[in-house]
Amino acid sequence: MKKAILIIQCPDQKGIVAEVSRFLYSYEGNILEVDQHVDEEMGMFFMRAAWELDSFSLQKDEIASRFKEEVGERFKMDFKLHFNFPKPRMAIFVSKLSHCLFDILGRHHAGQLEVDIPVVVSNHQSLKEIVEAFGIPFHYIPITSETKAAAEANQLELMKTNTIDFVVLGRYMQILSADFIKHFPNRIINIHHSFLPAFVGARPYHAAYERGVKIIGATAHYVTEELDAGPIIEQEVARVRHHNSVTELVQIGQDVEKVVLSKAIKYHVDRKVMPIKNKTVIFY
Amino acid sequence: MKKAILIIQCPDQKGIVAEVSRFLYSYEGNILEVDQHVDEEMGMFFMRAAWELDSFSLQKDEIASRFKEEVGERFKMDFKLHFNFPKPRMAIFVSKLSHCLFDILGRHHAGQLEVDIPVVVSNHQSLKEIVEAFGIPFHYIPITSETKAAAEANQLELMKTNTIDFVVLGRYMQILSADFIKHFPNRIINIHHSFLPAFVGARPYHAAYERGVKIIGATAHYVTEELDAGPIIEQEVARVRHHNSVTELVQIGQDVEKVVLSKAIKYHVDRKVMPIKNKTVIFY
Amino acid sequence: MKKAILIIQCPDQKGIVAEVSRFLYSYEGNILEVDQHVDEEMGMFFMRAAWELDSFSLQKDEIASRFKEEVGERFKMDFKLHFNFPKPRMAIFVSKLSHCLFDILGRHHAGQLEVDIPVVVSNHQSLKEIVEAFGIPFHYIPITSETKAAAEANQLELMKTNTIDFVVLGRYMQILSADFIKHFPNRIINIHHSFLPAFVGARPYHAAYERGVKIIGATAHYVTEELDAGPIIEQEVARVRHHNSVTELVQIGQDVEKVVLSKAIKYHVDRKVMPIKNKTVIFY
Amino acid sequence: MKKAILIIQCPDQKGIVAEVSRFLYSYEGNILEVDQHVDEEMGMFFMRAAWELDSFSLQKDEIASRFKEEVGERFKMDFKLHFNFPKPRMAIFVSKLSHCLFDILGRHHAGQLEVDIPVVVSNHQSLKEIVEAFGIPFHYIPITSETKAAAEANQLELMKTNTIDFVVLGRYMQILSADFIKHFPNRIINIHHSFLPAFVGARPYHAAYERGVKIIGATAHYVTEELDAGPIIEQEVARVRHHNSVTELVQIGQDVEKVVLSKAIKYHVDRKVMPIKNKTVIFY
Repeated sequence: MKKAILIIQCPDQKGIVAEVSRFLYSYEGNILEVDQHVDEEMGMFFMRAAWELDSFSLQKDEIASRFKEEVGERFKMDFKLHFNFPKPRMAIFVSKLSHCLFDILGRHHAGQLEVDIPVVVSNHQSLKEIVEAFGIPFHYIPITSETKAAAEANQLELMKTNTIDFVVLGRYMQILSADFIKHFPNRIINIHHSFLPAFVGARPYHAAYERGVKIIGATAHYVTEELDAGPIIEQEVARVRHHNSVTELVQIGQDVEKVVLSKAIKYHVDRKVMPIKNKTVIFY
Repeated sequence: MKKAILIIQCPDQKGIVAEVSRFLYSYEGNILEVDQHVDEEMGMFFMRAAWELDSFSLQKDEIASRFKEEVGERFKMDFKLHFNFPKPRMAIFVSKLSHCLFDILGRHHAGQLEVDIPVVVSNHQSLKEIVEAFGIPFHYIPITSETKAAAEANQLELMKTNTIDFVVLGRYMQILSADFIKHFPNRIINIHHSFLPAFVGARPYHAAYERGVKIIGATAHYVTEELDAGPIIEQEVARVRHHNSVTELVQIGQDVEKVVLSKAIKYHVDRKVMPIKNKTVIFY
Repeated sequence: MKKAILIIQCPDQKGIVAEVSRFLYSYEGNILEVDQHVDEEMGMFFMRAAWELDSFSLQKDEIASRFKEEVGERFKMDFKLHFNFPKPRMAIFVSKLSHCLFDILGRHHAGQLEVDIPVVVSNHQSLKEIVEAFGIPFHYIPITSETKAAAEANQLELMKTNTIDFVVLGRYMQILSADFIKHFPNRIINIHHSFLPAFVGARPYHAAYERGVKIIGATAHYVTEELDAGPIIEQEVARVRHHNSVTELVQIGQDVEKVVLSKAIKYHVDRKVMPIKNKTVIFY
Repeated sequence: MKKAILIIQCPDQKGIVAEVSRFLYSYEGNILEVDQHVDEEMGMFFMRAAWELDSFSLQKDEIASRFKEEVGERFKMDFKLHFNFPKPRMAIFVSKLSHCLFDILGRHHAGQLEVDIPVVVSNHQSLKEIVEAFGIPFHYIPITSETKAAAEANQLELMKTNTIDFVVLGRYMQILSADFIKHFPNRIINIHHSFLPAFVGARPYHAAYERGVKIIGATAHYVTEELDAGPIIEQEVARVRHHNSVTELVQIGQDVEKVVLSKAIKYHVDRKVMPIKNKTVIFY
């Protein structure tokens, strides 16, 4: 089904829902989902509306301007209009660990992830064969401290050539430069292998082991310049016990990581995530 | 804050959200929460809207008739209008087990449950003293198979005298008659100590033990004539292991029961539960 | 590390732990794990002990007879001795759904599952290419109601040729005959897509949707002749809401299924599961 | 049932389980539970054994010296012998928040907590009436920055008079002095209202709200001089969403706090917790 999705934020005031729904109704929009949220502290209003496009009486490329004119300007709205076609184009960056990658490829293969995946990028070659068996192009771009800048330029070129919409770091063990991140604001999803803000940085399972926590977790978040500090999209946890070694924490944690990352990707693809400052509103 | 809450169900069609929100806006309603749900199979639309009453330009007792006239009739709506004042009046029925009762009384004492509790009814006297320490009247109504009809008449009279809105069975070990239930359609909340539909009926922890399940649970549901078959409001589970005795299952399960029941009460009191046939839409 | 694993059951009495640990100590066994369980109702004692084989002063093939002579007979023990080498040989049966299969293959590829997988059997060809990319032989054995007996004979032959130790049904949509099951008592692991004993049989997600449950689940169990009634190895659940369609329940449930099945396989491979009548003791 | 419980730690070596179980067997001990753990990094062995005392052929007060002589010295064991009678004596410290206190009192009233509670101490009077309805003495000891030292002296005297074994801080909003803590090493259990090590210190729900986490939690730990840094006994979490206010986080979190604290108390009372440096081994 062809859908339009409208994402709105504006100063809170009366009548917004009424006006947005009147607009959609006036052009025969069959509303599929409407969600709204008011942040009382910020005095801001957030809304997501999805409707069927086929029966809508405005042309696809008229909608944004009409909406702006009839509704958006009056409420000083910051809005974005999305469609669920063509599918968003997602790049996956990985190193050697395969659990997140295979989980994503499996879902995509089963038709459960509405994205195109034109490219998997890795600084290792080990996962090439299986990625290609899934019918996805695999790009090997090795990275050393000397070649990092060149490698990133290479990656960015690849993103451009493939008109990539957003990037998923599926346990990609390299830190992206501020410059790379600027090309994809709130469009790079990372999976961090701890329950943030606990255990920021490297080796969180070791840190969890040292601290003796009884629960470990994983966090999917948008990448910002500050390490592991971007807006959190999804988190989940698993119980561990005193007899679990670090190796076991890693394995237990990987099951959490892959589920959390895939949920975050799904929310992002369905345009259900609104990053607000350093937090997210998630309309699921 | 004084709130009005409108609960709507009607055949699905375009324009409902627009008209309802226009109505509220036209009388200066400041919308606090709006949620809607479409059941595609049934072709039905469900909605809940809450707004501030103080700034609303209609009088409290005009709202229902105006809404019916301006919106409800046109869309063939079945709707109910609630206010969060005066507080709903809740009766609690218990036997000897105290965990659900104490949990509810504790929340009420902490000001976290927006209800009045004019009466606790029990067929045992053992919990009287503590209930009264919480400032709640305790009514002892013993029940034997001979006196059951008279006891129920007594209970119903007590409900009437206290203008009870809804009844909570907090591990009340007696089965209510069809007649009693008819007085409170979808207004009696029971906690069943299993993950329904598994282990219907008596001694579910024993049955769970016998079957060797690895997870036990609890279910809060509205009471209907058919035992343990009413609309489910909330469920939760806890892990158990082979070494847990039935006694331990009971203790582990009680922690689940009390949380599930209190959540269900909260949803009910906030008018967030819409029973639809044998299911519930829960707008939380 | 080479390990020996001893699994014991016998009538409960004093001194069993003392005698078993004395036996291991007397041959310089370095105990890695010891767990025991007493079923009070049955009056039975269960134990699992794992120790390093390299430093053990008995030869691998002497252990069982010595243990029987020195300890087992005296306590009327029913015991089994396992080694963690060679790796157990596991067959996977699938139909069209890939989520469990890919999850298992991914773990195996990452070196986290101590099994050999000599064969994947399917009644469809659709997953062949990816299975083979993982380096695992794929056998297509189509089944119709007419060819079922012949297909099973074919499957059994394949199990024999490949000296298969145990079989995993990774959402294999066919019901195995009693005869097939007899070849692998407590050695066929099935994943059922509900929280047993709720929703036995076909289409449990549809049944869960109809009943309006707030939590769905999955159950890994040993296959017995009675459908979905064998000893439960592992279960897990996920929350769902009124707006989730059956299709969404399926997707949410699949994430649970694959984690539950992989945990059950791991417990089985590590010889941590003791089926006792229709239940399991799990020494994790 | 009268039980003896032996808690052992010593350098790891072969034969410990054999010797401990031989000792118990030689005096006709009927073992109820045995658990052991080896910390490979530290090279340390930990064990907990519980057995029936009635049928044991050593007198209660002979056991420790005999065990030391026959087993303990040889393995350089650091061991403690406990009995489940008389019941441990627990003091509860609270401020104004009642949820943890009422939860503990409810369990105690239901006979599910094998402790005596000779005293509840509070710096506020508000909970006095209900505590006393549960039959527990309530001591009001007000605290200001000027009177803190005197108040603590008063508290310590009260602990002494009542021969208190361990102290539970059930959301006690005061920080105990290092001196007070020294009187109860690993015998003061605090509930911290975050998932440690995230959100150490004051106002963790506010911090969680600011960071935009999707899961909040609670941690029960032994109190050490460093704030919120002692050995963790138990943790649990609950999901939250963007629309949850800080007030709602508090309410959701309180349900987690009370369950976590009660579990920690139960583990402590059953002598199932072994604090090792800054971590805990928990033999549940």
